[in-house]
Amino acid sequence: MPRHPEYHANDRLAILLHDGILGKHGKTGLALVRFAPERVAVVIDRQNANGSLADLTGIPLRNQIPIVENAHEALHYAPNTLAIGIAPLGGRLPAEWMKDLNTALLGGLNILNGLHTRLAEDPNLKPSLQPGRWIWDIRQEPSGLVSGDGSARLLPCKRVLFVGTDMSIGKMSAAIAFHRAAVSQGKRSKFMATGQTGIMLEGDGIPLDAIRVDFASGAVQQEVIACAKDREVVFIEGQGSLLNPASTATLPLMRGSQPTKLVLCHRAQMHHLRDFKWVRIPPLGQVVSMLEQVASAGGALAPVHVGCIVLNTHGLSDSEARYEIERTQAETGLPTNDVVRFGAQGLLDSVSM
Amino acid sequence: MPRHPEYHANDRLAILLHDGILGKHGKTGLALVRFAPERVAVVIDRQNANGSLADLTGIPLRNQIPIVENAHEALHYAPNTLAIGIAPLGGRLPAEWMKDLNTALLGGLNILNGLHTRLAEDPNLKPSLQPGRWIWDIRQEPSGLVSGDGSARLLPCKRVLFVGTDMSIGKMSAAIAFHRAAVSQGKRSKFMATGQTGIMLEGDGIPLDAIRVDFASGAVQQEVIACAKDREVVFIEGQGSLLNPASTATLPLMRGSQPTKLVLCHRAQMHHLRDFKWVRIPPLGQVVSMLEQVASAGGALAPVHVGCIVLNTHGLSDSEARYEIERTQAETGLPTNDVVRFGAQGLLDSVSM
Repeated sequence: MPRHPEYHANDRLAILLHDGILGKHGKTGLALVRFAPERVAVVIDRQNANGSLADLTGIPLRNQIPIVENAHEALHYAPNTLAIGIAPLGGRLPAEWMKDLNTALLGGLNILNGLHTRLAEDPNLKPSLQPGRWIWDIRQEPSGLVSGDGSARLLPCKRVLFVGTDMSIGKMSAAIAFHRAAVSQGKRSKFMATGQTGIMLEGDGIPLDAIRVDFASGAVQQEVIACAKDREVVFIEGQGSLLNPASTATLPLMRGSQPTKLVLCHRAQMHHLRDFKWVRIPPLGQVVSMLEQVASAGGALAPVHVGCIVLNTHGLSDSEARYEIERTQAETGLPTNDVVRFGAQGLLDSVSM
Repeated sequence: MPRHPEYHANDRLAILLHDGILGKHGKTGLALVRFAPERVAVVIDRQNANGSLADLTGIPLRNQIPIVENAHEALHYAPNTLAIGIAPLGGRLPAEWMKDLNTALLGGLNILNGLHTRLAEDPNLKPSLQPGRWIWDIRQEPSGLVSGDGSARLLPCKRVLFVGTDMSIGKMSAAIAFHRAAVSQGKRSKFMATGQTGIMLEGDGIPLDAIRVDFASGAVQQEVIACAKDREVVFIEGQGSLLNPASTATLPLMRGSQPTKLVLCHRAQMHHLRDFKWVRIPPLGQVVSMLEQVASAGGALAPVHVGCIVLNTHGLSDSEARYEIERTQAETGLPTNDVVRFGAQGLLDSVSM
């Protein structure tokens, strides 16, 4: 279970988020703001310096979080770790970001890096690293991996895996909402992160997309076994989608975690994949049936059912959202809700029985 | 498309196969003997030195291939490349093999390495490498990978993907048999290798199990597009199995290649997975239905059908084999044959229409 020994003691974050508040590549940084605002000291975005983060993002924030132009200004807010919250186009870091990273390091900060690109050994950064500080490359394959053998099926705890009709439709948000609802009911629950954003939030997890195919199922298995210790339920962050031609991750998540229940995440009124308009999303009942077939490997493994549907109604009014939720529930016969908007309490029973 | 520029000119092979002729870890070496005996100059196996390879393996060989005790003796047969045909337990190479590899390099040979362990930069080997010779680490992630986008669906050629009820039941052998049958009918056909053995045989391909989850579907797609050029049909080597809890590879193969047909490979009289006795193989009709559901993503992608079943009847008599083939055909309604035993000609129509 990859975990940086000092991360949780160093989590007053500056988030590098140039052009990412309003642009398309700031998903990681915005998730940190949404799910852990109390840990965010300052956001760096040259495009929106001095703006209101709450107004710009629509995220309800109890306390205002300042937006500054560069890392130099961010240092005034006494962060101790800079988290890279944007993804560069193509993978190479722009020179301007490198300048911010160097400034942060020289200012005594750690760096949390969720990009595929390794930074810990980068000769352009290493000289700036101060004694006792670290650069954690989250998105690297952990060592000590093994092949999977399906032994997660023997764990006594519930294992709830979040799957989706597409990528980027709120699987992580849903898993976190379920986990927090379970905790608030006094359940011994764990959110199992499987991507860089989840790992930044949780402090541990596996970067599934950076793991070799041969070890993917085994890595999920090792992590779920570690998460299960003394827990009643593990909510497993999903990745990708079985419907998406770019995506592989759903299968090792299923095989490695041997889920007891699935939660299907879908965006209301979405009929085609976001990036692949030629892929029409079938009626949800068909998707549910296909997912259950794959999860049980056509009957070779134990039967697994979709317990409920999480509908992402972002952008709809409350009454429109309620209408879509009821329509989906009637269509599929499965309990349905938008857990970000209305909470996950009402759906907990459908997955933890 | 990873390919070593000098491999095909250097394919008089010595196969390192210690304890692998009769043991469990010689699958790669034995496949080289079976499918390309004309390229094998000598086999190295301390356990069976001076034995008859044909008798020991049951592989019909037109010309006898000598078995020797070590690399030093192998040099007498003038190979130009040593292929590592065994997998070590645990991943670390035994000291004795390292000695053979050094002897081979000092003797002027190249090395073909299909293990996860990198050897090209190994400080214990590099000094022995002679000028103009090379060590090719086949099982490393290629550079220049992209995410998949399903564009293989637009290729004009047929794309036949081999899938199985378990690992190690003859998917590669079946794909090669179909390819050779197609070539013998004058078809412009290509065998697309997706594992280290296939790559050693074909000289190109992708080591799917060494590719990160994020790039798996894209790597398959790039390779199938390269293979499709000027070809009527591409026979795609399968990896793993949707039924196997250790396995991830089937999904990126499906999404990346966007197959026009599937071929289901199964071992006659096998009722449980080899390494996981708790996994019962469902009736083949159920497996076929699950595979078709996954391949079409529950209706999101184009429908894909299993065209025929390849039954591995190794170990049965001819009449037992014929009985099992007929029984399977009657049970599933799909054309069935053992293509290694009886040839693939009769099944070609079922996949290339």
